[in-house]
Amino acid sequence: MPLTIQSAGEHALIERLRRRAGPPPAWVPLGIGDDAAVIQPARGAFDVVTADSLVENVHFRREWMSAGAIGHKALAVNLSDLAAMGATPRATLLSLAMPVEFPLADFDALVDAFVSLGDREKVALVGGNLTRSPGPLVVDVTLLGAARPRRLLTRSGGRPGHELYLTGSIGAAAAGLACLEADGPANREADAMACIARYERPEARVRCGVQVARNRAASACMDLSDGLADAAGQLASASRTGVILDAEALPIHPSACRWAAKAGVDPITFGLAGGEDYELLFSVGPRQRRAFLAAVARCHGLTVSRVGRLTAEAGQWLVRAGESQPLGKGFTHF
Amino acid sequence: MPLTIQSAGEHALIERLRRRAGPPPAWVPLGIGDDAAVIQPARGAFDVVTADSLVENVHFRREWMSAGAIGHKALAVNLSDLAAMGATPRATLLSLAMPVEFPLADFDALVDAFVSLGDREKVALVGGNLTRSPGPLVVDVTLLGAARPRRLLTRSGGRPGHELYLTGSIGAAAAGLACLEADGPANREADAMACIARYERPEARVRCGVQVARNRAASACMDLSDGLADAAGQLASASRTGVILDAEALPIHPSACRWAAKAGVDPITFGLAGGEDYELLFSVGPRQRRAFLAAVARCHGLTVSRVGRLTAEAGQWLVRAGESQPLGKGFTHF
Repeated sequence: MPLTIQSAGEHALIERLRRRAGPPPAWVPLGIGDDAAVIQPARGAFDVVTADSLVENVHFRREWMSAGAIGHKALAVNLSDLAAMGATPRATLLSLAMPVEFPLADFDALVDAFVSLGDREKVALVGGNLTRSPGPLVVDVTLLGAARPRRLLTRSGGRPGHELYLTGSIGAAAAGLACLEADGPANREADAMACIARYERPEARVRCGVQVARNRAASACMDLSDGLADAAGQLASASRTGVILDAEALPIHPSACRWAAKAGVDPITFGLAGGEDYELLFSVGPRQRRAFLAAVARCHGLTVSRVGRLTAEAGQWLVRAGESQPLGKGFTHF
Repeated sequence: MPLTIQSAGEHALIERLRRRAGPPPAWVPLGIGDDAAVIQPARGAFDVVTADSLVENVHFRREWMSAGAIGHKALAVNLSDLAAMGATPRATLLSLAMPVEFPLADFDALVDAFVSLGDREKVALVGGNLTRSPGPLVVDVTLLGAARPRRLLTRSGGRPGHELYLTGSIGAAAAGLACLEADGPANREADAMACIARYERPEARVRCGVQVARNRAASACMDLSDGLADAAGQLASASRTGVILDAEALPIHPSACRWAAKAGVDPITFGLAGGEDYELLFSVGPRQRRAFLAAVARCHGLTVSRVGRLTAEAGQWLVRAGESQPLGKGFTHF
């Protein structure tokens, strides 16, 4: 029988977590192990803070997703929120509510993947909470970062005429989820595998958000946790503008495109509505365009696509083959 | 049929939360509604940050505890952690994983009680996360505060010879839980009601922690989330000392005392092991004693008791009627 978290006990688990997190950086005078963690704020910057949860059987299934992927994704979705603010992530708290039979090896793998992504992004794991769950595994993460006051990217700074740019590609995470829902984690062809990998281990666009914000190269930004249609609609609403997206310009992930073709699904609709891509959507003013493209060019091969624009007229539209249709909704959690 | 959170939908719930939280204070340039919240750090202070969760059927039962009590307690336990650091609480994030049938009225009551305690302690609700839970209600709270670098209270500053002081009284929360476990939320006598109230709506010793820390009037501090035996043991371990508690000096709550007498339970053992009192345990050096008592005197009728001392010899002991016995353990979450 594999060892479980229950057999280890609470204090041993915290000690295990602390060892895996490693010693905190100099600007964390007190990390894991006291009543709270202590962090030296970044000089001249605001604190930027976000929280996001992954809940078993809502956001993942343990039969489908390895503990390592769960740990990675729990941090990545929070990194994406800070990236959308143009903030540099610094410190994180990991709260786990775990079934008593949760294997100790899975606990270790989850924490290791979390810490490993944190190390890559220079984010210190400074605290959190461990408790028992009588039901699903719940992974709740808080992420603190820093941003200079006039360098913040909010959702509300967009203006009519500003163009919308999208990093990377969309649709693959939703296609990955559809593959898992159809067949579980069985062996599969390359396109399905690529989509599942995007669903399980999203890459937050941290560097891109920070580069664009530092150079004040966008007027607004939001990440795509709930899909492009949702993000474009919310950015436009917060900015009190309308929005038009151009169907032909949408960067559908090639594997998702091929998967959709085989599955008889419209890739555009799928790419618009599908969540969990964790790309960034920017609105860019006419005088910011050059700086924006230069900032993106500093992001190691990341592509951006111009996917639409904000409008003075209210309304959220998709233009496809010359026809306008309502943009529709993304994923909702209830 | 009562309205549920599912009938409201995610965006409406966030809007509801935002309205209940009210407008953020001036030092929160961006509160609920963007990808992350933005907080201006307190001048010349460290950020102090903690997270703690309440999980249904682990930390509470919905049949026993009103949604308001759950909301109050979820913030109170985090306030207690910051109090134990001597930090002033400032901003909080509330993450809820909710069953779809969770009544909208309960959502409102939970949030209102959370916000109401926050208002009293000048803590702004700045963000969080709402998601569905296929199992228990999970309330995960992150609390940020501030403390001046040389005014922090850690667990590790205790030295041999330092005396241990405890705020308030112990045992009532555990007695309240025992009453609920025995009879559920039925009508009862005054002592049981008093104990249940302490279990459901603990009062964090925020002012006391801050006053003592500001005056550097203690060498170490920890809160009593998992009971006095656990806290004393952990404070001593972190300070690399032994500890002796004096059974006769323990401030057992009078209602808990009477309840224990009737239930045929030893009130001392019960008071030591019982968790969730959220009192503060301080170690106080000989030259800090006067300042410590003066700081406590500024806390509106809060009492403190001298319950033991740290020792040079390793070992954790309880002295009772002249006999030493091992201190034993508090509550463990697994």
